Amino acid sequence: MAKKIPTRLYLDEEEIPKSWYNLRSDMVSKPDPILHPGTLKSATAADLEAVFCKECVKQELDETNRLIPIPEGLQEFYRAYRPAPLIRAYFLEKALGTPAEIYYKHEGTNTSGSHKLNSAAAQAFYAKAEGLTSLTTETGAGQWGSAMAMACAYYGLDLTVYMVKVSSEQKPYRKALIETYGANLIPSPSNTTESGRKILEQNPNTGGSLGCAISEAIETSVKTDKCRYVLGSVLNHVLLHQSIIGQEARAALEKYGVTPDIIIGCAGGGSNLGGLIAPFMGDKIKGKSKTRFIAVEPASCPSFTRGRYAYDFGDTAKTTPLLRMYTLGSGFMPSANHAGGLRYHGMNPILSKLYKDGYLEARSAVQTDVFDAAVKFAKIEGILPAPESSHAIKAAIDEALECKRTGEKKVILFGLTGTGYFDMSAYMSYNAKTMSDSIPTDADLEKGFASIPEIPQNK
Amino acid sequence: MAKKIPTRLYLDEEEIPKSWYNLRSDMVSKPDPILHPGTLKSATAADLEAVFCKECVKQELDETNRLIPIPEGLQEFYRAYRPAPLIRAYFLEKALGTPAEIYYKHEGTNTSGSHKLNSAAAQAFYAKAEGLTSLTTETGAGQWGSAMAMACAYYGLDLTVYMVKVSSEQKPYRKALIETYGANLIPSPSNTTESGRKILEQNPNTGGSLGCAISEAIETSVKTDKCRYVLGSVLNHVLLHQSIIGQEARAALEKYGVTPDIIIGCAGGGSNLGGLIAPFMGDKIKGKSKTRFIAVEPASCPSFTRGRYAYDFGDTAKTTPLLRMYTLGSGFMPSANHAGGLRYHGMNPILSKLYKDGYLEARSAVQTDVFDAAVKFAKIEGILPAPESSHAIKAAIDEALECKRTGEKKVILFGLTGTGYFDMSAYMSYNAKTMSDSIPTDADLEKGFASIPEIPQNK
Repeated sequence: MAKKIPTRLYLDEEEIPKSWYNLRSDMVSKPDPILHPGTLKSATAADLEAVFCKECVKQELDETNRLIPIPEGLQEFYRAYRPAPLIRAYFLEKALGTPAEIYYKHEGTNTSGSHKLNSAAAQAFYAKAEGLTSLTTETGAGQWGSAMAMACAYYGLDLTVYMVKVSSEQKPYRKALIETYGANLIPSPSNTTESGRKILEQNPNTGGSLGCAISEAIETSVKTDKCRYVLGSVLNHVLLHQSIIGQEARAALEKYGVTPDIIIGCAGGGSNLGGLIAPFMGDKIKGKSKTRFIAVEPASCPSFTRGRYAYDFGDTAKTTPLLRMYTLGSGFMPSANHAGGLRYHGMNPILSKLYKDGYLEARSAVQTDVFDAAVKFAKIEGILPAPESSHAIKAAIDEALECKRTGEKKVILFGLTGTGYFDMSAYMSYNAKTMSDSIPTDADLEKGFASIPEIPQNK
Repeated sequence: MAKKIPTRLYLDEEEIPKSWYNLRSDMVSKPDPILHPGTLKSATAADLEAVFCKECVKQELDETNRLIPIPEGLQEFYRAYRPAPLIRAYFLEKALGTPAEIYYKHEGTNTSGSHKLNSAAAQAFYAKAEGLTSLTTETGAGQWGSAMAMACAYYGLDLTVYMVKVSSEQKPYRKALIETYGANLIPSPSNTTESGRKILEQNPNTGGSLGCAISEAIETSVKTDKCRYVLGSVLNHVLLHQSIIGQEARAALEKYGVTPDIIIGCAGGGSNLGGLIAPFMGDKIKGKSKTRFIAVEPASCPSFTRGRYAYDFGDTAKTTPLLRMYTLGSGFMPSANHAGGLRYHGMNPILSKLYKDGYLEARSAVQTDVFDAAVKFAKIEGILPAPESSHAIKAAIDEALECKRTGEKKVILFGLTGTGYFDMSAYMSYNAKTMSDSIPTDADLEKGFASIPEIPQNK
């Protein structure tokens, strides 16, 4: 007789994973190498160490080690907010009348409000261990900036956050949270950098962009002593840190003998999706499971579903190393009416490769449908979700209703990446029915694709 | 050898209490009875049922039953967000260098952001069970309004929330949260009631007050079919529902053989403090422990430390039953620069009686000291606390530092009633150093005392 499954499946503290799982080690066909933008040759550790912490660079390039130990000083920080709960959505199942079992991994119980803290803590820990005294980064929606501010407060590092100007104006409380944790927050573009001044000269009234904020953060880190730049998604070492999400979820499900049939994650740069699916995808690659994996992205920024698989830059100034990924082109700008995060033009290389090779499905959703799902979920499950996470909720509800139609008793797991407490302006526009959808035309996409570099590897 | 105590002490789902603990049943000297404001005789159930749900009235008047069963349909809702974590403050202990052990019960992990949901859920459950279709209430800082909106969304009841006008303007996101959960939010004073119109006539530009919002909510409930009024603090049945906080905390500590030497709670109307201490106070009354209990209130609204023990009204319009409690007078208004909640003029009768009889200590704190403690706690423990909860944090830090001075290894437990995610404007004013303190003068207090009714029982 199976054990009764509680609403909240908590692991014990000693069950928090002590190593991260490196999915690439089990991939038969590996992602293509990162290229140096000048030489177009594979980037070396030395190339990347000019910008990133050494240990993160090592992890970024590591395709062979299966388990990477989590240092004790970082495990200590993880114990401040982990294990994160895995929740059986009994209320949602009942409300939908579905025979499916629905579970979600809730990563929003920490003050930064999302899974981003898992990698922020790791990157701050390594920076401190390597003798650095400060870090720079950028933030758009603000979850990553909040997470880095918390991590730097804990490890005693100075932090400068370039926050996309329009976002810092629309989200004064997110800005206040970051400042409460002691970070120096600069609305971007700013006069503090060459790249910022250049953009302001050309366009004094710009609201800024993520690509521009990245350029400012990198420039500042390079010219500051004992300082490096940190990024919250897209890169492989970030996905490695996030594998703790999937490892905890799998450990909790295994206690009750449960194996997911479908795993769903929202996808912007891919940090949550990659972390959530990692150990389950390893099982699938090894032929141990037939789990389906579904990425859900906004219809307004559809890199998987309408992008190209090509080498591209990470920033609009075209200064970063080149990554082979699904991309809309670094020049692509999602419509201004797009509310949540998930507005990055590219997708993590590991996930891009898995999608290319057929291990991963993808679909997109328009934001009014996403907020319909968000408000339904909030009322039924009692948790107000982040707009990003609500993309996964929308797909989970759709899959559960499909089970209702077919009578199949599938097990669905999705990632609740965070809470929406600092996204109330988007909820206000949804409540007031002033929220609208925007789907880029083919011509819009062509403009973005034109910014993808014409290099031999892209022919 | 004692079991290693984890950072988070979770109970299993089946360990969530199935009954509330009625502290009055164990009190040797009971609180004085509630009086009907017209007759000045003990209020009967029939008197109170005109305003409140029947089951809540029964609980309000029950001095004898020790354990009151929590109905299964309500236990189900509790499982959506309980058990709430009890956290060992290892990080704070280390940062302070204290030999004390510090624990806190974290009630802010649900979307409403505080312990208020424990009673909101109960009151909505009983309203539904009694065949009511709608409820009315008031909210100041907004935690109670959010909790009621969540509970009414779950049980399918209409809810009208009168929100103090200045608060609804200063906290647009709190307002948006309440509306997202489907409640009808009306800034108070409003034109929807007699009492609101009267106040607007006299003072068209008023920002409103809690007392006025209570009057509007009661008026609307009385004139609406199948509708009752609900209150989030001060009353005895609210404290009964909140006893689940203390019961869970005690059960978790007992697993590790830990008994608190000091228990600290913030005090406004007393709902959290009363709930947190209830079972531990029962032990003390029965001579089973020597635990000290400390109430911490804002220096700007000091009902315990500078108030009078007298029969008083709950609202400024002087329409409610009379409660014997520590009060500043229903006419007392805390200074406008006071940031958080805890701005009610009176204190729950059970707690008032315990304080009067020497079972409970009380102290006050000025708000800049409270925010100093809040920001310190946020950086060290990784949780941004509500301003209300931070009063308890301030006292817990003081007691832990006293242990450092004396070398005593005391066990300190405090209530973290909620998170500060919807209180960022107060943090912004703290960060900008524009926050100030205000302590009422004796003359200010005399003005408030003048509003306490001159009845024989108060001679």
